[in-house]
Amino acid sequence: MTLSNPNLLANIRIVLTRTSHPGNIGAAARAMKTMGLSQLFLVDPAVFPNSQADAMASGATDLLAQAKVCATLAEALADTTLALGVSARRRDIVADVLTPPEASIRLLTEAQAGPVALVFGNETSGLSNEELSLCQGLVTIAANPDYSSLNLAAAVQVLSYEVRQAWLNHTSWPQPELDAASGDEVEKFYVHLEDALAELQFLNRGSPGKLMLKLRRLFARTRLAKEEVNILRGILTAAQEAKRGTGPFRNS
Amino acid sequence: MTLSNPNLLANIRIVLTRTSHPGNIGAAARAMKTMGLSQLFLVDPAVFPNSQADAMASGATDLLAQAKVCATLAEALADTTLALGVSARRRDIVADVLTPPEASIRLLTEAQAGPVALVFGNETSGLSNEELSLCQGLVTIAANPDYSSLNLAAAVQVLSYEVRQAWLNHTSWPQPELDAASGDEVEKFYVHLEDALAELQFLNRGSPGKLMLKLRRLFARTRLAKEEVNILRGILTAAQEAKRGTGPFRNS
Repeated sequence: MTLSNPNLLANIRIVLTRTSHPGNIGAAARAMKTMGLSQLFLVDPAVFPNSQADAMASGATDLLAQAKVCATLAEALADTTLALGVSARRRDIVADVLTPPEASIRLLTEAQAGPVALVFGNETSGLSNEELSLCQGLVTIAANPDYSSLNLAAAVQVLSYEVRQAWLNHTSWPQPELDAASGDEVEKFYVHLEDALAELQFLNRGSPGKLMLKLRRLFARTRLAKEEVNILRGILTAAQEAKRGTGPFRNS
Repeated sequence: MTLSNPNLLANIRIVLTRTSHPGNIGAAARAMKTMGLSQLFLVDPAVFPNSQADAMASGATDLLAQAKVCATLAEALADTTLALGVSARRRDIVADVLTPPEASIRLLTEAQAGPVALVFGNETSGLSNEELSLCQGLVTIAANPDYSSLNLAAAVQVLSYEVRQAWLNHTSWPQPELDAASGDEVEKFYVHLEDALAELQFLNRGSPGKLMLKLRRLFARTRLAKEEVNILRGILTAAQEAKRGTGPFRNS
């Protein structure tokens, strides 16, 4: 093809989690639309819909009308194969810390296969550790170390701008590296994992500690392929059957 | 030197002309500070200082306190040697239409010699033709052609971000190409030019038409060196003396 594929931009969603100020949601919608992004997901917003959001959206109220409101971040990422969290400072929870241009190329590459997400946290507290554990990478905007506090909509503007520049500058993209599992498939694996660990009495549901969070971080870092999820769940099933005494090697 | 020179950022000023909403001034100050820019110039703002500007500035109220309020754009550019106007769409008034990264490199190069400016127009009407005639180039953010209306502070964020990225990515810059005349020197030349043209009866002060604006556009496009301004003013003086009959070749 000779032109950048507009469907790629339609596969890149902006996810705002626990946004406090509805004006920021509207301003973020405006920022997105100026760069050709249209898919806005809101996780547990404090106030939405709201007249201040509409006012700040200016000519982008259509994005607000179509925005999908979700109860949890996992729900917003259920059908995505890549989610990158945007954070002002580096955290050591995920492996990759990408610049906005690097993140844009990665998102556009994966968007060929399906929906991908850029995830922005609360205005004051940013992304929680649990939210970060659902992201496969981190994007950091190189800011003034003495004052790195970009407004939420300003951060959305910078990332959307970089996505558009990368999209304009490339007419074709390499194929995605792997047939990645969707957020929903990975979540079902975690449920299966937790069930199996409880059954094996490796995890105490009454006092689980941080075991599941640590395991989530591990798998988020590696980014699971569909086939790998199937293999891992097969192992879990085999372990469960062994514990129950219902395995294939037992004649009952 | 091994590190980017912080003085370069201190020589890049953000000029906001005829801003309608004080909140946008505050949000622009915050955007600047997150990227290490500090010099804010306000030309004829509708409302300033203002509590809404302070609120939107968040931790960047120091930039508002130090902001210089000017009556005219010429005053804000008096000591600059390069001013680039930021406009959503291309206009054919000035020669160069730069991308934000190109503009950033040019500004940082010239900032070695003295103050340079990025000029942002009114939220609704943008930069007037007169304001553009004071700029030596135009910067355009590649936006969605169906909706290119970036919020003022969002545009300041994108340009400030690009300036910082360029600054971080280079430790040295080529020397400026020419010993550019300052805005003030160029303005004095225009006054001289207008006086001389009136004296020569080429310009009717009662009905000047667009002659001066057209001449301004011409010279803005070329970007005048100090020496060139001196030569041009020498020619004007010679013409005036010839008209008055006081030239050096006349024995009186």
